[in-house]
Amino acid sequence: MKAVMKVDKNPGIKVMNTDKPKPGPRDVLVRIKSTAYCGSDLHLYKWDGQAEKWNSPLPRILGHEFCGDVVEVGGNVSSIKTGDKVAGETHIPCEQCIMCRTGRAHICENMKIFGVHVPDGSFAEFAVIPETIAFKLPSDTPYDIGALYEPCGVAMHAVQRAEPEPGDVAVVLGCGPIGIYVQQIMKAIGSDVIATDIKKFRIDHAKRVGAAREVIDASEGNTVEKVKNVIGQRGADIVFEAAGAGETVKQSLDMVAKAGKVVLFGASPDNPTLDTTTYIVYKEIDVRGLTGRYMFSTWDRVERFVSRGLVDLESVVTHKFPLDKAEEGFQLLLKGEASKVILNP
Amino acid sequence: MKAVMKVDKNPGIKVMNTDKPKPGPRDVLVRIKSTAYCGSDLHLYKWDGQAEKWNSPLPRILGHEFCGDVVEVGGNVSSIKTGDKVAGETHIPCEQCIMCRTGRAHICENMKIFGVHVPDGSFAEFAVIPETIAFKLPSDTPYDIGALYEPCGVAMHAVQRAEPEPGDVAVVLGCGPIGIYVQQIMKAIGSDVIATDIKKFRIDHAKRVGAAREVIDASEGNTVEKVKNVIGQRGADIVFEAAGAGETVKQSLDMVAKAGKVVLFGASPDNPTLDTTTYIVYKEIDVRGLTGRYMFSTWDRVERFVSRGLVDLESVVTHKFPLDKAEEGFQLLLKGEASKVILNP
Amino acid sequence: MKAVMKVDKNPGIKVMNTDKPKPGPRDVLVRIKSTAYCGSDLHLYKWDGQAEKWNSPLPRILGHEFCGDVVEVGGNVSSIKTGDKVAGETHIPCEQCIMCRTGRAHICENMKIFGVHVPDGSFAEFAVIPETIAFKLPSDTPYDIGALYEPCGVAMHAVQRAEPEPGDVAVVLGCGPIGIYVQQIMKAIGSDVIATDIKKFRIDHAKRVGAAREVIDASEGNTVEKVKNVIGQRGADIVFEAAGAGETVKQSLDMVAKAGKVVLFGASPDNPTLDTTTYIVYKEIDVRGLTGRYMFSTWDRVERFVSRGLVDLESVVTHKFPLDKAEEGFQLLLKGEASKVILNP
Amino acid sequence: MKAVMKVDKNPGIKVMNTDKPKPGPRDVLVRIKSTAYCGSDLHLYKWDGQAEKWNSPLPRILGHEFCGDVVEVGGNVSSIKTGDKVAGETHIPCEQCIMCRTGRAHICENMKIFGVHVPDGSFAEFAVIPETIAFKLPSDTPYDIGALYEPCGVAMHAVQRAEPEPGDVAVVLGCGPIGIYVQQIMKAIGSDVIATDIKKFRIDHAKRVGAAREVIDASEGNTVEKVKNVIGQRGADIVFEAAGAGETVKQSLDMVAKAGKVVLFGASPDNPTLDTTTYIVYKEIDVRGLTGRYMFSTWDRVERFVSRGLVDLESVVTHKFPLDKAEEGFQLLLKGEASKVILNP
Repeated sequence: MKAVMKVDKNPGIKVMNTDKPKPGPRDVLVRIKSTAYCGSDLHLYKWDGQAEKWNSPLPRILGHEFCGDVVEVGGNVSSIKTGDKVAGETHIPCEQCIMCRTGRAHICENMKIFGVHVPDGSFAEFAVIPETIAFKLPSDTPYDIGALYEPCGVAMHAVQRAEPEPGDVAVVLGCGPIGIYVQQIMKAIGSDVIATDIKKFRIDHAKRVGAAREVIDASEGNTVEKVKNVIGQRGADIVFEAAGAGETVKQSLDMVAKAGKVVLFGASPDNPTLDTTTYIVYKEIDVRGLTGRYMFSTWDRVERFVSRGLVDLESVVTHKFPLDKAEEGFQLLLKGEASKVILNP
Repeated sequence: MKAVMKVDKNPGIKVMNTDKPKPGPRDVLVRIKSTAYCGSDLHLYKWDGQAEKWNSPLPRILGHEFCGDVVEVGGNVSSIKTGDKVAGETHIPCEQCIMCRTGRAHICENMKIFGVHVPDGSFAEFAVIPETIAFKLPSDTPYDIGALYEPCGVAMHAVQRAEPEPGDVAVVLGCGPIGIYVQQIMKAIGSDVIATDIKKFRIDHAKRVGAAREVIDASEGNTVEKVKNVIGQRGADIVFEAAGAGETVKQSLDMVAKAGKVVLFGASPDNPTLDTTTYIVYKEIDVRGLTGRYMFSTWDRVERFVSRGLVDLESVVTHKFPLDKAEEGFQLLLKGEASKVILNP
Repeated sequence: MKAVMKVDKNPGIKVMNTDKPKPGPRDVLVRIKSTAYCGSDLHLYKWDGQAEKWNSPLPRILGHEFCGDVVEVGGNVSSIKTGDKVAGETHIPCEQCIMCRTGRAHICENMKIFGVHVPDGSFAEFAVIPETIAFKLPSDTPYDIGALYEPCGVAMHAVQRAEPEPGDVAVVLGCGPIGIYVQQIMKAIGSDVIATDIKKFRIDHAKRVGAAREVIDASEGNTVEKVKNVIGQRGADIVFEAAGAGETVKQSLDMVAKAGKVVLFGASPDNPTLDTTTYIVYKEIDVRGLTGRYMFSTWDRVERFVSRGLVDLESVVTHKFPLDKAEEGFQLLLKGEASKVILNP
Repeated sequence: MKAVMKVDKNPGIKVMNTDKPKPGPRDVLVRIKSTAYCGSDLHLYKWDGQAEKWNSPLPRILGHEFCGDVVEVGGNVSSIKTGDKVAGETHIPCEQCIMCRTGRAHICENMKIFGVHVPDGSFAEFAVIPETIAFKLPSDTPYDIGALYEPCGVAMHAVQRAEPEPGDVAVVLGCGPIGIYVQQIMKAIGSDVIATDIKKFRIDHAKRVGAAREVIDASEGNTVEKVKNVIGQRGADIVFEAAGAGETVKQSLDMVAKAGKVVLFGASPDNPTLDTTTYIVYKEIDVRGLTGRYMFSTWDRVERFVSRGLVDLESVVTHKFPLDKAEEGFQLLLKGEASKVILNP
């Protein structure tokens, strides 16, 4: 089968033929119909410090956000059958640690990441996944929508962690695909939403498809002041840090209201120096981190939002390519000229 | 009447005679029977950067933790009467801002601090307080116990913010009076408690009166490792940062378990640089700040704990003096040779 | 001044002249511009068993939902001034009991009800209210909107008690004014909403102005089955009992999903016999009661919803009359031919 | 092997020889060392209406609370190995329904009950259980303690559902084994605990091993008044209904404080008629049902309590017998002359 592979630690990828994988007794084999690029695929493409840290085995097939049809199931699989349309949870839990045994498998202590530790990802015609991470979709789900449940799940999880109250004022720092989903979800639950970003492409994209009342250009400084000019000096009930930068973590503590909540889920390469006393102690705020998605209550909520039209998953997609043109997708993302890019094998 | 006063910005205090204060229409006049030193009194004694920042009016009477008997009430006072035994909430709310109007008066947007902004504190024979901050104590409460409701309230508030679950493992960083109260409260609710400090006096004191299973000397480094050797590599369900230092804020993020809670209430003079991605995002923790006490649900819970013997307020008191010897109390505290010091006018 | 009065225990009211009331030192005098009928006014009109139970002093002015302008303030009033536009909380707290002192003044242990225990209600040209229950409205609030903050507050409080999650399925039993507000609020926060009622007038009204996807006629039985045919056999995440009947309390337990929430706030004249084992224990549900509004966090949230257009307060108003025609309003309500009726003095 | 069997619908049991069971691919075979009687075993012994309703297949081995050693594992078992000491969760989840997929497997929509639907229970020398319900115990756990994790888990789950706050006042209605565990757990977390029962044996037993400050005889009426005389007229912060009777459900609503919580987990044969308006709406309380245990966060908490000595599981055991004398255990329980009875095969 055809696959987008990382063969060595040099920058770049190769589209090449490789063996079709075989499912183990508790695995399912999926014919991939749609698969989307995530930031981690870019790290692996460039093979930067982050990739080095993951130490993923090479050669490997990239990709982990996907949707497809189950074409074969292992002998001990009970919940999935051939013909099911599935998306996949990226985090593979061990099912035995204290986290897995107490309802928090998504932060398993022995977590494996599909497409990172497991060498065969989803940028291919077929992929094998453990039954435990398969999420069965309604049969009429378009494949490109199904492939976006996973990134939308991060946004939904952020909202779940925020425990919003009716009528909250929310600021979303960052207008990448997940930031935009957070904006759409918060708008759908009645919040007043303001967004910021520093890149023109993302600001323009958010203005078109995001759900913020205002999208503020944060590239020229005074971001906290600009946001407070829009929402009032009290600050925001909830600030979502979706940009993944030390600077935006700092801003989030500053622009949140007393007794407010800051939700962190962007992976920041730099560590911020924070005035925890002024902003966390005296303002009595909550800072809540999150990663991944609850298995599978977050997925369930994404399904509800998609089926009722409360979120528009496809709105963040700016480009679609066949596997052969995977390189083009990487180039657009590296240049910051795309939001979400999809491959249709 | 006699009072312990700060007359100018030079270090030190003066015990001198001054006019007995008169209550306004919504105030009560309290004959002070017991009043305790807080860290903020030390800042004012030394008149350091923190004191400069508060910009308290001078001359002034120090002190804000107290207990006494009401000897006169203003014309519009309805909930307190002459003869009532009262302690006082330090934070004076405006009763009109959004925080005051939505159940969070303790973080009022126009907060005044008794003994900081209000020039007549409690290190005196009498003090005037607004009715709004008077907390009526059971009539059989010993005065020295009543004076310690306020600092114990910070500890109780920290526990309230932590929302502990049955059987939690808790680490308390810092063995000052409030740290010791947190240890006692957490022990009383069934938690496994470990404490740390860097000062020999405090470590020894905590071993005598604290409620920790183990008190770890953090002065020689590897504190996180030492703590995990006692509680296990998973880490703590809750870490209380009661030391007020950038270093302990950092440790708290490191030693908390996945999905755990870090509770910040120490005022730290230095701002820590934090790896928020590794510790907050990927471990999916909550960092919760707090200041003061809920008015008055925290006080109500302190009363329950005191009346049932679940906390020993007097255990942290190492010295008691009359007003005349106030200087001695300051000297002991500055040298780190006392835990809680009480003045009995 | 002119007022709608209950003079004795015979059915009916009288519109007559009476003295303009005078505010005490902590009261404000309000020129009433709009005031709405509540169910309790009907009990007093008819003087039925409920009225007898309240034992309200007679003669008295009816009414407690209102909006108007402050024209005079007592000497000790600090938060309200002449010219302010205000609505009023119906529940007058004592400010001293354990409930009042721990943030739950709305269920004060010594509660007085404006218009029930306090003899001068709002169906008049002027009314006196304690400063403690005055809620200052944005100055551009239309008076008829301001008068409806109080009933909408019950709906908002019900939603606050329900702690809805994103994408919940909610059923609202009852399409009176508060039931309709609950439907509008739940829709505004992204829920799927189904409503029921047994009266044709209310069903038709809900179809016009409510926000339910479907309004089910419950007058012919099999209500639970009918609702489940629409929302699925799993049942509802949240059921709001807004009808105030033993039968609907029973239905709510039956149609809620496992681990779901039933929110009770209708006052039911009959006591239901409930299979608590099957429905509460084995389905592991929460049944949550509520009355009135949080003071004033519920009001704050209503203000947010009104100002952002998330709820349409006026949509439930079917009739408006001057004080002279108060009798007409009572007749329409008694015949079930009106939803919300407003008097404009 | 020897087993305690129910062979037909006549009252009684038979101790007889039967085939040792064989584990399927995802099962484990346990050598039973200790197994305890539960109320459901009594229903099956008598074959009353409840037994008829369950419609359990006959012949069958009774029992489901147990502890033993794993002596064989199926081919696809990954988390348990031969030699492990295990207890067993009674509720066997389907792993596929919405409840199972969203963290609430303990109220699975297709639940099977071990020892009820599964014909081979634990009153035998060996039992087969699915890997999914095996809970691995610390290897030094005494077998009789391990067999009591399951009933103690119901008590722990009740406490988890109650979400107690520090210093709560709790009333426990019912002094059977689970009621006594609730008392011990609540005491261990600092609550003031009062208990009631109507049977002399249970009252005496609770006085010896329970943790209530006072055990009230409820057999002579005025129970609510008697309880309030001890805890104060405000009522209890939390009432646990552990008696399983319509009358105690009624009492629980009456004796709980405003804004308090009533926790229901006793299976009541009679349906109470409740004044929901006075007690749930106007007092603004929460009624929370629960059944079984969270899988496995409740078990994890029981383990913490047992290992730290915060609960004394063996304190409720009044009798121990070998399998041959199983009839004696049934007789004692039927006569109300035993609390927890254990069989040691």
